[in-house]
Amino acid sequence: MSFAGALRQGATLAVEGQPPAGDLSFLFRPRGVAVLGASSRELSIGYRVVRNLLDAGFTGGIYPVHPTEREVCGLPAFHSISDVPGPIDLVNVALRADRVPEALDACGLAGVRAAIIHSAGFAEVGPQGAVLESQALETARRHGMRLLGPNAQGLMNSDPDVRLYASFTFTPLVPGPVTILAHSGGVAELLNLHLRRAGVGIRWYASPGNSCDVDLSELLAAAATDEGTRVILMYIESVRDMPAFADAALRAGRDKALLVLKAGRTPDGARAVTSHTGALASGDVPFDAILNRAGALRMPTLREAVAAATAIARQPLPRGRRTALVCNAGGPGIAALDDACLSGLECATLTDATRASLRDSQSPFATIGALVDLAATAGPLEFRSALNTLLAADEVDGLVLSMVTPFFVDCDAVADAVALAAATSDKPVVVNVITDGRWSGVEDRLRSSGLPVFEFPEDASRAMAALTRVAEMRTRLPVSPPWERLDRSRLEAVLRASRINSDGWLSQGDAYAMLAAAGIPSAPIVVLRDDAQLSAFVETVARQLGFPVVVKADMPGLVHKLAAGAVLLNIADRASLVAAVTALRSRFGEAHMYAQRQVDGGIEAILGVVAQYPGLPLVMAGQGGTNVEKRGSVAFALAPLDDVAALRLIAGSRCPAFDDTAWDCEIQGEGAQLADALVRLSLLAVILPTVREIDINPLTVLPSGGGCIALDCRMRVS
Amino acid sequence: MSFAGALRQGATLAVEGQPPAGDLSFLFRPRGVAVLGASSRELSIGYRVVRNLLDAGFTGGIYPVHPTEREVCGLPAFHSISDVPGPIDLVNVALRADRVPEALDACGLAGVRAAIIHSAGFAEVGPQGAVLESQALETARRHGMRLLGPNAQGLMNSDPDVRLYASFTFTPLVPGPVTILAHSGGVAELLNLHLRRAGVGIRWYASPGNSCDVDLSELLAAAATDEGTRVILMYIESVRDMPAFADAALRAGRDKALLVLKAGRTPDGARAVTSHTGALASGDVPFDAILNRAGALRMPTLREAVAAATAIARQPLPRGRRTALVCNAGGPGIAALDDACLSGLECATLTDATRASLRDSQSPFATIGALVDLAATAGPLEFRSALNTLLAADEVDGLVLSMVTPFFVDCDAVADAVALAAATSDKPVVVNVITDGRWSGVEDRLRSSGLPVFEFPEDASRAMAALTRVAEMRTRLPVSPPWERLDRSRLEAVLRASRINSDGWLSQGDAYAMLAAAGIPSAPIVVLRDDAQLSAFVETVARQLGFPVVVKADMPGLVHKLAAGAVLLNIADRASLVAAVTALRSRFGEAHMYAQRQVDGGIEAILGVVAQYPGLPLVMAGQGGTNVEKRGSVAFALAPLDDVAALRLIAGSRCPAFDDTAWDCEIQGEGAQLADALVRLSLLAVILPTVREIDINPLTVLPSGGGCIALDCRMRVS
Repeated sequence: MSFAGALRQGATLAVEGQPPAGDLSFLFRPRGVAVLGASSRELSIGYRVVRNLLDAGFTGGIYPVHPTEREVCGLPAFHSISDVPGPIDLVNVALRADRVPEALDACGLAGVRAAIIHSAGFAEVGPQGAVLESQALETARRHGMRLLGPNAQGLMNSDPDVRLYASFTFTPLVPGPVTILAHSGGVAELLNLHLRRAGVGIRWYASPGNSCDVDLSELLAAAATDEGTRVILMYIESVRDMPAFADAALRAGRDKALLVLKAGRTPDGARAVTSHTGALASGDVPFDAILNRAGALRMPTLREAVAAATAIARQPLPRGRRTALVCNAGGPGIAALDDACLSGLECATLTDATRASLRDSQSPFATIGALVDLAATAGPLEFRSALNTLLAADEVDGLVLSMVTPFFVDCDAVADAVALAAATSDKPVVVNVITDGRWSGVEDRLRSSGLPVFEFPEDASRAMAALTRVAEMRTRLPVSPPWERLDRSRLEAVLRASRINSDGWLSQGDAYAMLAAAGIPSAPIVVLRDDAQLSAFVETVARQLGFPVVVKADMPGLVHKLAAGAVLLNIADRASLVAAVTALRSRFGEAHMYAQRQVDGGIEAILGVVAQYPGLPLVMAGQGGTNVEKRGSVAFALAPLDDVAALRLIAGSRCPAFDDTAWDCEIQGEGAQLADALVRLSLLAVILPTVREIDINPLTVLPSGGGCIALDCRMRVS
Repeated sequence: MSFAGALRQGATLAVEGQPPAGDLSFLFRPRGVAVLGASSRELSIGYRVVRNLLDAGFTGGIYPVHPTEREVCGLPAFHSISDVPGPIDLVNVALRADRVPEALDACGLAGVRAAIIHSAGFAEVGPQGAVLESQALETARRHGMRLLGPNAQGLMNSDPDVRLYASFTFTPLVPGPVTILAHSGGVAELLNLHLRRAGVGIRWYASPGNSCDVDLSELLAAAATDEGTRVILMYIESVRDMPAFADAALRAGRDKALLVLKAGRTPDGARAVTSHTGALASGDVPFDAILNRAGALRMPTLREAVAAATAIARQPLPRGRRTALVCNAGGPGIAALDDACLSGLECATLTDATRASLRDSQSPFATIGALVDLAATAGPLEFRSALNTLLAADEVDGLVLSMVTPFFVDCDAVADAVALAAATSDKPVVVNVITDGRWSGVEDRLRSSGLPVFEFPEDASRAMAALTRVAEMRTRLPVSPPWERLDRSRLEAVLRASRINSDGWLSQGDAYAMLAAAGIPSAPIVVLRDDAQLSAFVETVARQLGFPVVVKADMPGLVHKLAAGAVLLNIADRASLVAAVTALRSRFGEAHMYAQRQVDGGIEAILGVVAQYPGLPLVMAGQGGTNVEKRGSVAFALAPLDDVAALRLIAGSRCPAFDDTAWDCEIQGEGAQLADALVRLSLLAVILPTVREIDINPLTVLPSGGGCIALDCRMRVS
């Protein structure tokens, strides 16, 4: 069952059961591979694929297919796919685009189960190519074959039982724990190349090109269950099926470190001027909410993605953010310290005992401060002793070392000392080495011992910060939504009974009724019916609400009632009420009018729901009133939430440009109340899949546990 | 004359005349160098310095000095400095700290003019070391010797006439246009190392350690007049003498690209809760204001500093931000595009003619969009043609190329084509190459042709952004302050006549009088004298101001009068005025009271002055009222300003977290008025060097050219 489906059942949050992905084992673990378009021309894709399969030591059969050649790379070539004797699960197709559908048909007849289409000239070049792509897909479906591509770079699997290199790229296959999944072949290659330079091997590698059949989400879901994969490094240009991506990301996030790059970070998405939830949730908001729920990290640059993957692949996760910073040259050490703090790490506060122990083992030139500077003269003994002390200290969760290679020190021995200290600790160590080729032994020793090594101190600190963020994501408890707080059948009944206009908007009274059914109170209202006497309305208001009241004119599309002059406050008596209605009528003739009990005091919040993708409603929380316009003053999360997740979301709705002391302090005391309202709203959004958008602005949070009261609400369904 | 001195004369903005720095030619262009502590032990500093002097091919005499050795590195060694026959301008001292003062004395007697003290064990290790450092400095002064250090790594000068490598580091001396000045030897080495990897050589290099005599500011002032220096890359841990640094930075900024790293970017400086100018100008604000006036760039990381220096050293400056982005693999191209936009570049909008010309020369697989993707099959012809077309296009100011090295393309020929196209254009080109060691020829060809080459696409875009920012700084006109707007003698007379309390605060009336003397009007006030009859005050108010008025209680230290309840608005008649004064008296007994004409409407701004360092007053402008609390809603600049600089400052006071549409639109129409007030305030701050702090909050900018009116003002002098 998909995540969206599971949510609609309202019974479970965690994703259970088998992966929804089709079986990709014929792609990643084929018994035999044929290469259509195999060639002896070294500068051809067909040659390169055969070469790569051979060089990587593919454990299955390799069958070059070419109409005339006898031999390719020393292997016998076959004139057609039907001539191949052994079992062929996978073909690599490097033929002209217009020949691909027919070739696939022959493959299907020969029992092939999957194909990688390297050829370009399909949907990416226009309508004619799109027709060819459809033909290829249809042919494959007819034979029950899976397709990677067309316009695909290919895939790899470094599993020693397989050793598959079915791609035309140049970076050799080195086994390791990182799986690379990338729309762009260029980016996949870049990531692989730099991981290899960092001494990190890969597990799977796939670049699906046009993704007419197998796409990144399915690859991600498959990698989620691959035991050899510990880190998934993913580059996404666009998400075709957001619910499928969510499903795969949530699966992958359970056991793997998931690092995600997404193209198109700019333009920032022209921020909508109006403050309704839908407008605020523009751009990558749903995507980021999915990553956040999955415990994935979104990486800002390719470089930082490689650095993070390197550190995670090679080091244990820290238990916290308290990082010791060690150097033998102060300036680079300070740079590491600065960037560590900027990246969210905390500089470990060393105890007196730790300081004393360090002092004892170091030269008088060493400085034991926030930065532990061993001085350029420090040798292997000083390094080993300092690292052992710091890594054994309870107040240290991880260690960043920045070292230069002074010519008057035995730097190889220093590297060995560092490697040994790191290897005997269960805390992560990340190293920056400042040196040139004459000390290449230092880097080699550190790398081969499993340490991540970086050229710049800032890169080392950022890698440690990524390790720490992954660790924090891992330790978050899964959300466990309190479904019992809501009465599903009552919600459904109220929705059925609601008046809904042609655009899907519920009447104001019905929107409030929906909130009431979810257990979110609103200030009571009296609606002025079109056919009612004004005097009767006035008496009803006086009797049911009492004064003072607020009078509002309500129209679809009127988001900022207050700013539009459609809200009159402080109506203190009957005469003022008549005057207010008259004034609003003259201005908003056709609008619905209603009076609402005036609620003063409390903190103004905004809550909202937007369901842009089926089964993936987002909830929003933030500061109400005009503060909504402040960038960053609202935050989004995937529904449903429990109280812990709701409180986290509320804490995330601080505007970083502000010292939001007032909001922080005020909301802290009343957080539980606001969280309960948010949880209820999130459950409602999941239980009623037709809800498209809800805005509660403002929601007043009354002090001293007085509860939350919605003062305005708009709700739209499909 | 120093910048500060020139400013006080009020006659000139540009720094004129000779550099104030002492002559450092004996450090950078010595005729002979002696090495005290020279040694044949290869792992000693004394050996390494002699070795480096020899290997770099120093053009003067090299004289190892050692009490017993006969020869060091094949050169005859001398037993004492007095035995050296040739002229010695410079000594490198690698002796134990306690022997340094005596050795310097001997050097002085032998006619040495400058010394680099490599030895550690001085002020950096505590009081005893500080005494030694004083002795060393005193000895040097007695002999008229300049000192670099102690605890200094040393210096270099790659001038072919000199070829001085007076340092114990390991990176070989490669001549080039970049001068490195860094407190930290480790950072200096790191910068040099990575510049060398990028193919960029250095001109000067200096790391002054404890800087007891020659410091970074003096080195900067000297580099400012060095013809061989085109880029100055500077790393600063702390500034001892801010006016001297300002003076040097302004000199350097006139002719050089000045890139500055400053340590200690965190903690961000606990932001003061109160909104007076002094509190807002915390942390690095004065430093950044100096860099901004000097046209210098502050770099966020060591890596970006190296990248920027590389690009500036190797490429011409662009005329604008419009950047063409070219690639042969879409994904990395998009990453380059994203980071280009995030870094402030604009993606060039290609004309139809340019597009048509590109289309003609490229394969059908090429995509001509915001990103020009030539496709992986593009060869030398396609690259050359695309680059020539784009670099010739009027709508393109610079070009970022991201290229992979497909094995089926002649990549060396592509590199040559790119190099040729770049070399024949006066627009900058920056390249990202994604490849491995098998294509090292590609990088070599590009680098040796003068192109900056980066491993990651984002790095290439950021380097282009740095080039563009330098270009924009260069084209800013020098500030030309309109001194004639202010009457210096009147300002001085009003200040002399002012009542000033023991903390330096001017009385409220005198503060307004100072503004009036500067041509900044304020709302008229009537002060209630301690001995005056209330009834007489009321009559004076009615006669001189008319109603409504505002009544204020004024006390030193009361910054937010309104929030403290010390301002009563809308006093409409005599009776209300009596009641208001009575109410304020009961609350603020000892405070001064005054009435002020109430001014309604207009836009609230805040202006301020803070003079933390003598001769370097900063002016502040921003949004008034509570908006001052918004981070980034105020901006600072070094005084004085002209109208252009004032408008730029006002534009810089937008809070980036806001869509400050209201502020932008409102202020746009009235910018000239606000700028005039700001210019006047900045001139006042320079003309009266005892002014420490001024806050005008709010300053109301009246619509339709109605002028600016200060509604509250505090002023402090020393």
